[in-house]
Amino acid sequence: MVGSIVADAMRAEDVAAGKAEVLPEELDLAEVPEEAVAMGLPDAANEFGGAVERSGRKDISLGRNVHSTCFAVTEPDADDEETGDREAYMASVLARYRRSLVERTRHHLGYPYNLDFDYGELAQLQHFSINNLGDPFIESNYGVHSRQFEVGVLDWFARLWEIEKDQYWGYITNCGTEGNLHGILVGREVFPDGILYASRESHYSVFKAARMYRMECVKVDTLITGEIDCADFGKKILLNQDKPAIINVNIGTTVKGAVDDLDLVIETLENNGFKGRFYIHCDGALFGLMMPFVKRAPKVTFKKPIGSVSVSGHKFVGCPMPCGVQITRLEHINALSRNVEYLASRDATIMGSRNGHAPIFLWYTLNRKGYRGFQKEVQRCLRNAHYLRDRLRAAGVSAMLNELSSTVVFERPPDEEFVRRWQLACQGSIAHVVVMPNVTIDKLDHFLDELVAKRAAWFPAGGSQIPCIAADVGEENCACTLHRC
Amino acid sequence: MVGSIVADAMRAEDVAAGKAEVLPEELDLAEVPEEAVAMGLPDAANEFGGAVERSGRKDISLGRNVHSTCFAVTEPDADDEETGDREAYMASVLARYRRSLVERTRHHLGYPYNLDFDYGELAQLQHFSINNLGDPFIESNYGVHSRQFEVGVLDWFARLWEIEKDQYWGYITNCGTEGNLHGILVGREVFPDGILYASRESHYSVFKAARMYRMECVKVDTLITGEIDCADFGKKILLNQDKPAIINVNIGTTVKGAVDDLDLVIETLENNGFKGRFYIHCDGALFGLMMPFVKRAPKVTFKKPIGSVSVSGHKFVGCPMPCGVQITRLEHINALSRNVEYLASRDATIMGSRNGHAPIFLWYTLNRKGYRGFQKEVQRCLRNAHYLRDRLRAAGVSAMLNELSSTVVFERPPDEEFVRRWQLACQGSIAHVVVMPNVTIDKLDHFLDELVAKRAAWFPAGGSQIPCIAADVGEENCACTLHRC
Repeated sequence: MVGSIVADAMRAEDVAAGKAEVLPEELDLAEVPEEAVAMGLPDAANEFGGAVERSGRKDISLGRNVHSTCFAVTEPDADDEETGDREAYMASVLARYRRSLVERTRHHLGYPYNLDFDYGELAQLQHFSINNLGDPFIESNYGVHSRQFEVGVLDWFARLWEIEKDQYWGYITNCGTEGNLHGILVGREVFPDGILYASRESHYSVFKAARMYRMECVKVDTLITGEIDCADFGKKILLNQDKPAIINVNIGTTVKGAVDDLDLVIETLENNGFKGRFYIHCDGALFGLMMPFVKRAPKVTFKKPIGSVSVSGHKFVGCPMPCGVQITRLEHINALSRNVEYLASRDATIMGSRNGHAPIFLWYTLNRKGYRGFQKEVQRCLRNAHYLRDRLRAAGVSAMLNELSSTVVFERPPDEEFVRRWQLACQGSIAHVVVMPNVTIDKLDHFLDELVAKRAAWFPAGGSQIPCIAADVGEENCACTLHRC
Repeated sequence: MVGSIVADAMRAEDVAAGKAEVLPEELDLAEVPEEAVAMGLPDAANEFGGAVERSGRKDISLGRNVHSTCFAVTEPDADDEETGDREAYMASVLARYRRSLVERTRHHLGYPYNLDFDYGELAQLQHFSINNLGDPFIESNYGVHSRQFEVGVLDWFARLWEIEKDQYWGYITNCGTEGNLHGILVGREVFPDGILYASRESHYSVFKAARMYRMECVKVDTLITGEIDCADFGKKILLNQDKPAIINVNIGTTVKGAVDDLDLVIETLENNGFKGRFYIHCDGALFGLMMPFVKRAPKVTFKKPIGSVSVSGHKFVGCPMPCGVQITRLEHINALSRNVEYLASRDATIMGSRNGHAPIFLWYTLNRKGYRGFQKEVQRCLRNAHYLRDRLRAAGVSAMLNELSSTVVFERPPDEEFVRRWQLACQGSIAHVVVMPNVTIDKLDHFLDELVAKRAAWFPAGGSQIPCIAADVGEENCACTLHRC
C-alpha cells in the first residue's frame, strides 16, 4: 500500500516533470533506501481517520519527505529590485497557482466544504494583523482584534442551540478538531477519571484527544448507517460503572454523514445509572449547522443534558481558511478555572493567539444569509443529494444516503486518477460526495456523465464485475449481482 | 481587581455609548449579581501568563460574558434585498471597524507583532478555501491546498536551523502555542515518563501543555534578566534522576525577551547524568527568527541535541492572522507513529485542518526579504530598542534591555488609559515595548514625548514618587531614589 499511495501522490505532478520515481505498487520495505522510509505516519490520502485500508488490510503507510513539488524560497539577488526578475517570478508562480485553484475548486466534490463564498468586501481587512488573544469575553490590551464580531457570532450559535447568553462560554476555533479537543478537555476536567466513549466512526481527532489527554477510551460499535450502536454502548458503560462517562456524539459522521441518536444516548446513560455522571460533547462539524434546518431532525440543544457542541465554520458556511465554533456551559468553564493554576494561563481556549479574520467572515455570512438563507440552502443540498443518489442507483451504482444527510456514499471508483480529479474522499471500498451549497445539479450531471462513461471501461463485463459493498452500505443499497433487486 | 479590569475594559466604548455601567474600582464579590460572576478565568488583560497581579497581590480575576460591545447578527428582513438597508448597515459597521483598526495599528507598541506588511497581491486568493489537511508531506485528495508553499517555507527554516531536508519533519501551525503544544507532545511520546522542566518565565502555553497532557511539571527559577537559572535547574533535575527530562528552552521570554542559555542547559543535563535521556523543545516564538541574525548570539541549531524548535509567523515576519512554524526531527515523528494507533489519525499535527493561506503569506515575505532583508530589519530593531531604552533612562524612567533582545522593559505607567492607548503589555509593576520592524524612531518619539509629559502629572513630586522596580529589572536599571546613580 505504501508504494501505491506514495506513487499516486507523486504521479500527477512529479512524474510528469520527470522529477520523481514511481515506486512499485507493492513495496517491500526492505527495498526502500533508508532515507526514503520517512515518517511512517498514518496516511493522509483521505479525510477519514485511521490508517487507510486497502485490499482489506490495515497497514502502516509510509510518507516521504517529498520536496519535488515545492516552491522553494530563494535568496533575492542583489540586483533584484532593479531587474524586477524576482517580482516577475513570484507573480508567475502566483498566477499559475491561482489557475490551479480555480480548476481544483471547480472539480471538487468529496469534502464537506462550501467553496461558494464572496468575501470581496473584506479584502481590505487583510492589511491588519487581527488577533483575538485569549478569551473572547475578556478584553486584551492588544487593540487590533475582532471580539465584537466574535461575540456576535457566538451569540447567534448560542441562540441556535438554545442556551442563554449568560449561561454559555465559547470561542471561534481554528477548526473542528480544536472544537473536539476543547470539548473533550472540558469533559475530562469535569470528570477527571471519566472514560471517553466514542463510536468507531467518530472523527480521528476524538481518538487523538484521548491519547493526548491520557484518557481511557472505549470504542463503540456502529450500525450500518454509521450511527452509534446504543445496544453496544449500553453494554460497554456497564463494564465501567464505577467511572463517569464522557461521550462524543456525532452530529454527522465524517464518512457516512450519520447522526448519532442523542436522545437514545442520554436514555442509555440514565437507564444505566449514569445520571449526573456523564458529559456529552456533540461533534457537529458539518451537520451541527444543517440539522437545525432539517424537518423531523432530532434537536441538538442545551435544554438536553449536553456539555458542549462544536461546528466547523469552513464547512457549511464556507470560509477561506478552516475555523469553527465551540460552545459550552459557563459553569464548566467556571469549574475548570476555579483553580487559577489550572491552565496557568489567562484563558480557557486551546490556542492562545487566535485568527481574528475568521469571526468576521462568519459574521458577514450569518448576517447576509440569516436563518432563512441557511434553511433554503440546506433544503437545496438535501434535494441535490437525493438527486445524486437516485441517478447513481439508476446507473446501477451502489449508493447510500442517510435520511438527515447530504453525504452520498457509493462504490469507490477503481481509478485513482478519476478519484483525484473529483477529489473524492475514500475509505476502503467506498467513496463519498458531500453535497454542499456550491454543488449544483449541473456539476453533479457533469460528474455523473463522466462516471457512467468511465464505468463502462472499468467494468466491461458488466454486472459480475461490480464489487459488493453491502458490508458498508447495507444489502438494500448494494447493486452487486447478489444484492441488486 | 475584578471590578477594575472589567470596568476598564468597558469604559472605552460601552460607557461612552451609555451601554454599560462602570463597576466600582474595588469590587466586593458578594455584591455582584450571580449572573455577572462569570468564568472566573485568569485574566486576559495582558499578553503574559499567570493571573494578573495588581497591587502586588495575585488574584483570580473574573470576566463577564460581556455582550454590550458586540456587533449582533440579526435576521435579514424580507425586503432587505430591495431596500439595501442591510447592505448599508454592514458596510457602515465595516467602515467604522476599519477606521478603528487603522488607529489601533498606528498606536501599537506592546505586542511582538510586526504590523507592517503588504499582501495586496495575495488578496485574490481569499476567494479560495485553502486547507492543508493533515501532513504537509503527504498529498491529500483535497486539491485546494498550498503544500507546495508550505514545504518551501519549512525547508527555509530547516536551513536556518541547520537540519537536512530528509532529517526533519514540520508544519505551519496556527500560532506559537500550537508549536509548543506539539513540541512538548513529541517530547512526552519520546519519553512517556519524562518530567517537564520550564523556567517560570516561560510562556503560559507550556504549563497549559503540562496540564493537558497530564505531565509532571517542575518550574525552574530565573535570573533577573529572565533567563533560566541553570544552578536551580541542576538542583531540580537531580531530585528526579530516575526520570528523563523534557525541557522547554525560551528563545526570548514573553515578558523580558530573555534568551535561555541553550548550551548551559545542555551542559547541565549532561553533567548530571542525563545524556541521551532528555528532550529539548526551543520556544522561539519571537527571537527564534531574530537570533540567527544577531552577531554573537548563541546559535539555535539541530547540530546541538535539541528535539524541536517553534517560531511564530505573525511576529517578526508579520501576517494578517496568527501562524507559526514547527520543526522537529523526523526520527521522533517516526518513533511516535510507529504505532499506527498512536494518533488514530492520518497525521502527526495537532490540528487536522490547517489554514492554507498562512504558508503563502510566509512564502511571500521570505522570498521578498530573504536572509539579507531580515538581517537588516533585525539590526534596525535592535538599534531602535537601544534608542528607546536610552531615552527612557535619560528621562529618569527605570528601563532594562537584554543584550540579544528588542524588548524594552520599564516602569509600568500608573494610568490605564495611557497603557491601553499604546497597547502596552504589563505584568505587575513593569510594562514593555517590543520594537518590531514597524516601530520607527518617529513612533517611539511620539510615545516618549507623551510619556514624559504625562509622567510629570503622574509624579508631580518627582523622585520620591517614582516606584522601585529593582526586583524586576535589577538595581542597575532602576531609577528610583534609592537606586538611581
